[in-house]
Amino acid sequence: MMHGEFDYIAAIRRRIPSAPHVLVGPGDDCAVLAPSPREQLVTVDAVMDGVDFILNECGPVAAGRKAMLVNLSDLAAMAGEPKSAVIALCCPRSREIADGVFEGIHQVARQYGTAIIGGDTNTWDGPLVISITLLGEVTGRGPVLRSGAKVGDWLIVTGPLGGSLRGRHLEPTPRIREAIDVHASYTLHAMIDLSDGLAQDLGHILEESHCGAELIAERIPIHADARASSGPSPLDRALGDGEDFELLMALPPDDARRLLRDRPAWSHIGQCVEQGMWLIRDGRRETLPPRGWEHELTSDPNLSKPC
Amino acid sequence: MMHGEFDYIAAIRRRIPSAPHVLVGPGDDCAVLAPSPREQLVTVDAVMDGVDFILNECGPVAAGRKAMLVNLSDLAAMAGEPKSAVIALCCPRSREIADGVFEGIHQVARQYGTAIIGGDTNTWDGPLVISITLLGEVTGRGPVLRSGAKVGDWLIVTGPLGGSLRGRHLEPTPRIREAIDVHASYTLHAMIDLSDGLAQDLGHILEESHCGAELIAERIPIHADARASSGPSPLDRALGDGEDFELLMALPPDDARRLLRDRPAWSHIGQCVEQGMWLIRDGRRETLPPRGWEHELTSDPNLSKPC
Repeated sequence: MMHGEFDYIAAIRRRIPSAPHVLVGPGDDCAVLAPSPREQLVTVDAVMDGVDFILNECGPVAAGRKAMLVNLSDLAAMAGEPKSAVIALCCPRSREIADGVFEGIHQVARQYGTAIIGGDTNTWDGPLVISITLLGEVTGRGPVLRSGAKVGDWLIVTGPLGGSLRGRHLEPTPRIREAIDVHASYTLHAMIDLSDGLAQDLGHILEESHCGAELIAERIPIHADARASSGPSPLDRALGDGEDFELLMALPPDDARRLLRDRPAWSHIGQCVEQGMWLIRDGRRETLPPRGWEHELTSDPNLSKPC
Repeated sequence: MMHGEFDYIAAIRRRIPSAPHVLVGPGDDCAVLAPSPREQLVTVDAVMDGVDFILNECGPVAAGRKAMLVNLSDLAAMAGEPKSAVIALCCPRSREIADGVFEGIHQVARQYGTAIIGGDTNTWDGPLVISITLLGEVTGRGPVLRSGAKVGDWLIVTGPLGGSLRGRHLEPTPRIREAIDVHASYTLHAMIDLSDGLAQDLGHILEESHCGAELIAERIPIHADARASSGPSPLDRALGDGEDFELLMALPPDDARRLLRDRPAWSHIGQCVEQGMWLIRDGRRETLPPRGWEHELTSDPNLSKPC
């Protein structure tokens, strides 16, 4: 039986609840949102079959869930509140896949109070791509940037790291609530979500904040998945694997101490210094190169095969 | 020589000018936009190698330009003003392609006063995908929806239709200025941009407006490209080819007459009626089925090949 894009969109529209800030939802050339007195947050993340998930292994619902969850994690990193999502889908010509992807997105959107306000549904012979743009708002305390870390700040992570490819990467827990709570009660100088890997993402904070940091090896919380993985050492996996989607925060020491009393499961892994990125291991300080996930671009022209 | 995603992002950040409404641009987990008292417009469109362009034929700059232009056309259809764009890129591992895509997007963004506020750069073995989410604002007159057409309204199109695949589809002219001008000076009941094809897109207006329409065959402006194409008749091409990116508007007759005096190159192609979609040709009224571009989704599971 043949279905088309418009039948799919009609089915989606029937399932999407109304939301007070959405004046016009899916089904027009643009969505229309009510004005808001708050600063707006915008982030985009695309997930791709064969790169971010294997559709044949995880199925379309999990792929749709991951697409939403990783975007929510970016919003958490600013201490923002999610409001609206738009979805661009490049989908194999299968209604089952398209329905599954929507189901996954819809489940997560509902759980995190996010309105699906529009999308673009395309089919092709290529692999599934789900690109979601998430709109959110800052709280009354404003956004938390990568650029505010100061020398002496303590670095805190919200959970254990490494080995996420064993399966955890598909179902991260965006730390939306935690970020807003911490931002409301503590001085939060800088924050990032750990998607590319601790050493890579810490590098992003240091670059934007124009400072350095030293990490203390034995304080870095290592996930059981990292210990259960072969290849690199568990510590190297915690430093470089990525897709943990925990938050890395920089706070002044007094606030950090107070925070750790309230959140004993979180870890103080190091502090900001004048310059460089360092790992203190067995009492010795060694340089810590940024490492982790980075998409490669070569200057060898390698034009794609149109499908 | 090897380049990576972060080097590419750094190069982009150096080229992006600041804009007053962008408090934080590319380089953090989210962009931060200043609040606005106006209603916000949001639209997304993804373009894909092998579907919306052939990268090996048109090159990456043209692909980037098209990605922005088709999004701007959706914004024009609401009579909105473009403000900000976020870009998700699924790119072959070639810095030349990534640079070309950005160059194309950047050219069009500059021309239409749109700030590039963020993105997600991914590489893979699959074909190039450029997904752009465009944010805009309504003017003081609010948005123009698809749903406001009324029986008796005249239907006007802003330019000739059909045969866009001969090349025009790559370089459409988004009717941003025209839409805002018409909305400021005339009563505009409904509007859509012609991306899927006149008969398909008119169908969208009628469905949302709960009315019908009759088109007068000899009044439909046919592009030279439609006459120069083989296969379907020029009229059928004008009705069904799509990717014209002209605007289709519904206005009360008095406003429509006044508008046509000011814009003699635009065409009055028919009017809204109680129900049905009709074509009047040689004095006979025949039903006009919706036709044009629709992405196919079958219920035959056709899982994608991960790449």
